[in-house]
Amino acid sequence: MSEQPERVERAVVPALEEILGVAFPVLDDGFVRVVDYMGNDSSIVQAARVSYGKGTRKTSEDRGLIRYLLRHRHTTPFEMCEIKLHVRVPMDCWRQWIRHRTANVNEYSTRYSIAIDKAQGTRPDQWRRQAASNKQGSDGFADQEAGQRLTEREQELQSLAREIYNERLEQGIAREQARKDLPLATYTEAYWKVDLHNLLHFLALRMDPHAQQEIRAYATLIGEQVVAKWLPLAWEAFQDYRMGGFFLTRIDREVFELVTRGEQEAAVRKAEELGILSRGKDGLKRNRERSELESKLSAFGLPVPWADQE
Amino acid sequence: MSEQPERVERAVVPALEEILGVAFPVLDDGFVRVVDYMGNDSSIVQAARVSYGKGTRKTSEDRGLIRYLLRHRHTTPFEMCEIKLHVRVPMDCWRQWIRHRTANVNEYSTRYSIAIDKAQGTRPDQWRRQAASNKQGSDGFADQEAGQRLTEREQELQSLAREIYNERLEQGIAREQARKDLPLATYTEAYWKVDLHNLLHFLALRMDPHAQQEIRAYATLIGEQVVAKWLPLAWEAFQDYRMGGFFLTRIDREVFELVTRGEQEAAVRKAEELGILSRGKDGLKRNRERSELESKLSAFGLPVPWADQE
Amino acid sequence: MSEQPERVERAVVPALEEILGVAFPVLDDGFVRVVDYMGNDSSIVQAARVSYGKGTRKTSEDRGLIRYLLRHRHTTPFEMCEIKLHVRVPMDCWRQWIRHRTANVNEYSTRYSIAIDKAQGTRPDQWRRQAASNKQGSDGFADQEAGQRLTEREQELQSLAREIYNERLEQGIAREQARKDLPLATYTEAYWKVDLHNLLHFLALRMDPHAQQEIRAYATLIGEQVVAKWLPLAWEAFQDYRMGGFFLTRIDREVFELVTRGEQEAAVRKAEELGILSRGKDGLKRNRERSELESKLSAFGLPVPWADQE
Amino acid sequence: MSEQPERVERAVVPALEEILGVAFPVLDDGFVRVVDYMGNDSSIVQAARVSYGKGTRKTSEDRGLIRYLLRHRHTTPFEMCEIKLHVRVPMDCWRQWIRHRTANVNEYSTRYSIAIDKAQGTRPDQWRRQAASNKQGSDGFADQEAGQRLTEREQELQSLAREIYNERLEQGIAREQARKDLPLATYTEAYWKVDLHNLLHFLALRMDPHAQQEIRAYATLIGEQVVAKWLPLAWEAFQDYRMGGFFLTRIDREVFELVTRGEQEAAVRKAEELGILSRGKDGLKRNRERSELESKLSAFGLPVPWADQE
Repeated sequence: MSEQPERVERAVVPALEEILGVAFPVLDDGFVRVVDYMGNDSSIVQAARVSYGKGTRKTSEDRGLIRYLLRHRHTTPFEMCEIKLHVRVPMDCWRQWIRHRTANVNEYSTRYSIAIDKAQGTRPDQWRRQAASNKQGSDGFADQEAGQRLTEREQELQSLAREIYNERLEQGIAREQARKDLPLATYTEAYWKVDLHNLLHFLALRMDPHAQQEIRAYATLIGEQVVAKWLPLAWEAFQDYRMGGFFLTRIDREVFELVTRGEQEAAVRKAEELGILSRGKDGLKRNRERSELESKLSAFGLPVPWADQE
Repeated sequence: MSEQPERVERAVVPALEEILGVAFPVLDDGFVRVVDYMGNDSSIVQAARVSYGKGTRKTSEDRGLIRYLLRHRHTTPFEMCEIKLHVRVPMDCWRQWIRHRTANVNEYSTRYSIAIDKAQGTRPDQWRRQAASNKQGSDGFADQEAGQRLTEREQELQSLAREIYNERLEQGIAREQARKDLPLATYTEAYWKVDLHNLLHFLALRMDPHAQQEIRAYATLIGEQVVAKWLPLAWEAFQDYRMGGFFLTRIDREVFELVTRGEQEAAVRKAEELGILSRGKDGLKRNRERSELESKLSAFGLPVPWADQE
Repeated sequence: MSEQPERVERAVVPALEEILGVAFPVLDDGFVRVVDYMGNDSSIVQAARVSYGKGTRKTSEDRGLIRYLLRHRHTTPFEMCEIKLHVRVPMDCWRQWIRHRTANVNEYSTRYSIAIDKAQGTRPDQWRRQAASNKQGSDGFADQEAGQRLTEREQELQSLAREIYNERLEQGIAREQARKDLPLATYTEAYWKVDLHNLLHFLALRMDPHAQQEIRAYATLIGEQVVAKWLPLAWEAFQDYRMGGFFLTRIDREVFELVTRGEQEAAVRKAEELGILSRGKDGLKRNRERSELESKLSAFGLPVPWADQE
Repeated sequence: MSEQPERVERAVVPALEEILGVAFPVLDDGFVRVVDYMGNDSSIVQAARVSYGKGTRKTSEDRGLIRYLLRHRHTTPFEMCEIKLHVRVPMDCWRQWIRHRTANVNEYSTRYSIAIDKAQGTRPDQWRRQAASNKQGSDGFADQEAGQRLTEREQELQSLAREIYNERLEQGIAREQARKDLPLATYTEAYWKVDLHNLLHFLALRMDPHAQQEIRAYATLIGEQVVAKWLPLAWEAFQDYRMGGFFLTRIDREVFELVTRGEQEAAVRKAEELGILSRGKDGLKRNRERSELESKLSAFGLPVPWADQE
C-alpha cells in the first residue's frame, strides 16, 4: 500500500457549506447551527480502505462499501467524520442530550454569566397526556380549556422564577446560587462536537418514537437537515439499516420459523417450552416478551398462533 | 513471570465494609452512600507490578510505589480500583457532576416516576455574595435581613413550582412534560460508578476552593469519609502531590531562578522580555499571568522584584 | 424514593468466588484468571430500579427485568457490574483485544522487564487455510505433511528470534530496543478490567464465528466459564437476544413480508425496485446485500423468490 | 447571548493547508501525513466564549485567553479542534501509541491484506545501551563493531521472518495465521483522528525524554511540524506551560520555602519530619522522593541543605 499522494485537499461538502452558521429553529426559541465539520462520504470509504489496504476506487463503489460497513456494524470508519454544532436547547432536554458521553462539549456557564432570559413555553394545544400503556411516554393532548389554564399557570411560574432570579442578582447574590431555582425548561446554549458513529447512535435513540418529543425535534432536525446534506450515502444506509431495521431474538426466530412454515401447533408448543406462554385461570398469563413477539408477527402479516386462546 | 497462585481472595477493606450502605448526609437533604467497591491499596500495587513484571513484594514497599506512581502520573494502576456510590443531589449540582464523562451512571427518571418532592433550600444565613474578583465565585454572605427575605421568596417559588407540578399530574399531563418547570435545585438520585483515577481527578477539581460550594460539599465528603477509609495510602499520596501541589510554568521558573539567586534586576528584565511586565502611563499594565506569578512568589516567601513599580 | 437501608453487604457470587485466581488455560500457553469483580445479577436490577424509582422487588422478577433491559438495549444498568481479569495472551491476539477502548489495562512491560520467553506455537494439524469466500477468514486445515514442515519452520524462526533477543541483551542493548524483532505471537500478560456492558459487546464481536480463532478461544472461555457463573441471568439473556439474534434491515423486511404472504412475484419486483436485483447478460448480477437476504430467507425456511433466475 | 450570524465560513489554516497530504518521513520507512483538520486557534477561543457567554472579541485577546485556559487546565475548549493523521509506524511503536484510548483509529488489516513488506531496521550506530539508572530507558550506543554484528543479525532474522511469512502464504495458509511470527518492528499504517486536548496529552507524554526514542520521533514531528503550524498560539502556550513546566509537591514546597529563606537547618529537620531523610549506618538512606527534590533544588540553583551528610 501507501503510494501516498504528495498533496491532498480537504474534504468539502458544498451542500453543507451553504448552511454553515445558519440557525435552524427548534421548539419555541431553540436552534441548531452547524459550525464546522470534517470529512464527507468518501472519508468513510478512505478510512475503511486503509484497513483493507486498497488504493482509491471508483466513486461508484463508495455507496456499496458504506452500506456494507453500516449493515455489518463496522463502526470505526464512521468515526472518521466529525461535526461541530452550536445548539440552543432547554436544560431539561440538554440533561438527556448530555448523557451521550462520547462527545466534546462547551456549555454556556450560568456561574460566569447571567442565565439566558427565556424558558421553553407551552402553547395551550401542546400539553401532552400521560400514556396509559407506556410509563415513559405521552399520548394525545389535553383539551383546549385545560390547556389554556395550564399555559397560564406555566407563565405565572416562569415569571415568578425570573423575578426572583433578578431579585437575587440585584441583592448581590452570586450567580452560581441565584440560578438555583430557575425552571428546568430554561434555555442553555452549547457547542457540541461528535463523530459520525456516535452521532448516528444518538440519532437512532433520539429520533425513535419512544424518545421524548423535545429531544426528538432536535434529533430529527439534525438528521434530516444536517446529516442528509452532509453525508447522503451514509444517511441513506442509516435509514435502511438502522432506523427501518428490525431485531429478532433467538426466541422470536424459533417461533417465526414454525409460523412461516404453517406449523401453528408446533409454534404454540415452542412458545410454551420457551417459557413465554402459560395459562392462568383467566386465560393466558401476561408476558411482555410474548407481546413483543406478537407485534413482530403482525408486522410481517403473520398469524399469532395462540390468538384464539387469549 | 506468571507463577499464578491457584486461588485468590477478593480485596476487602474492613474500614469501608463498616460504612457500606450508610447514608452520609450532605446539604439539607442530600446524601452519599457507598454501595460496592473493587480493590484496595494493594490492588494498585498489584497492577503496577504486572507492568513491571515483578512478583509479590513486602507490603512495606507498597506505600513507596503508590507514591511514586501518583507523583509521576502513572495513572493506569489507579484505574484498577472501582467504587459505586448512591447519591442524592440537587439537579443543579448534578449538572456539574455529570460533566465528568468517564463514569457509569443510572439516574432516577422523572419521565418514568414522579419527581422527588424536595428542592434544596437555603437558610437565611447561607446566601452567598457574588465575588468581585472572580466572575465564577462567591465571597461572604448577604446580611441577615436580606437573607430572611431571600429565603421567604425561595420558599414561595418552590411551593408554587410544586403546586403547578402536581396540578399538571392531576390533569393527566405526561410526567415528561409536567416536570419541565421544576426548579434546578430539585433533588435527584443516581448510582455513580467510577474508577479511582477518574475519581481522584473529580476530587482534585471539585474539592478545589474554586469549585461551587455545593459540589465541594459532596466531593469533600467523598474524599475524606470514603476514599480516606478505602485507600489510605493512595489518599495520603493524593493529598501530598495533587492537592498540596504547585505548578510552575516555564515563565515562572525563569523568574523564580533569578529571584532565588537574589538577582532582582535581572528578574525584572526577564519578566519584561517574557512579555508579562510592561508599563503604561499609570504604572504597570495589568497582566493576569504576572499576577499569578506574584502569588506564587509570595507563597514561597520570595520578594516580587517589581513591587516598587506598581 | 430513597428509604435507604442503613447497611448493606457487598454483592457476592459464590460460584465465581470458587474460581477466583484459578488460571483457565487457553491456547498452548495462555490463560485467563478472574482477579476480582463487582456486582451480581441483582446489581443490574438495583441500578435499573434507581432509574425507575422503584423499591426492592421479589427476586423472581429480576429475570424478567434483566431480559427486558437487554432486549431493549437499555445498557447503563449493565455498566454497574465490573470484572478484573489477568490474562496471558499472544501479542498478536492482544492487538485485537486492545482495540476495545472502554476498559482499564495494565500490561506487562518489555521496556522494563525481559520479555516472556514463550511465543504461541502451532501444531502440525492446526495450520488453517485461507478462506476463499471471506478475505478475513480461514477455512479448513493444511494437510499433514505441509503442516509438519510449517511447524518446523515456525520453530526455527521462533528459536532464532529468541537467540537474537538474548544476544542483544547480553550485548547490553536496551530492552526497549532488543525486543523489536520478537515475533508477534510472543506472549504478554495484562490486567484487564471492564464493565459488563462493554464486556458483552466484546464477547458479541469476539465469540462470533467471523472473529479470529485465537481471540475467539479467549472470548468463549470468558463467556462460558466466567460470565455464565458470575451472572447467570444476564448470560442467558445475552445468548437469547444478542448471540442468537437476527437483524432484518428495512429492505429485508419489505421482501420478507411479501414472501411470507406468498406473494413471490411482488417480492421479485420489490427487490428490483430496492436496487438489489438486476440482470446482466449472464443472469443475475452479483449483489452482496441480496446474498445476505437470501441467507436470511433460508434460515427461516422461506423460498428465495428469484431462485430460478440465477 | 446568541446574536447568531446568519452564515459562517469554516476555520481554515493556510500554513496547514500547504502540507495537507505531504508525508513527513520518520525513522527508516515511516511517515506522518495530515489528512484533514477542524478548527484553528480562534476555535478554542470561540468555544470558551460560549461558556463565558461573551460575543466575539478582538483577535489580540485570543492569545491571552488561550494561555489562561491552558495554564488553568480548562481543557474542554481544546477538544473543539480535531486532526486526522495518516501514519506509518512500526507495530512495536504503534503498541504504545494505541494505549491512548481517546482517539479514532483505522488500522491496516493484516487479516484482510498481505502485511507491509518492511520492518524497521537499525543502522550499526543506532543500537542503544540499557540505562543503568533507569530500568525503562537507554543511554548511549553500542560500539561500532558490536553494532555491525547486531545489524547483520537483525537482517538475518527479518529476512527469515519474511521468507517464512511468504512460504505460509504460498502454502495457502490464512493471512490471519501466517502473520503470527512477523517481527514486532514490522510497519503498519493507520488513520488516527484525535482532538487537540488529547493530542497535547499524547505529546506531553511522548515528547518527554523518558519516552522511547521511536515514538518520540513521531511525537516531536507531530508537535513541531504539524501542531506548531496548525495552532501557533496553543502550541506556544503548551511549550510554556506543559513542556517547560515544573511540578512541586506539598513536600517539595515545604522544603523549598525554608531553603529560599536561607533556613537550611530547619529545612533538614522538615525533611526528616516528612519522612524523606533518615540515616543508616552508612550515611543517608536512599529515598527516591528526596532525590527528585534534590534535582528540583538544583534546577533552581538552590543548595541541597543535607548535601554534606551524604
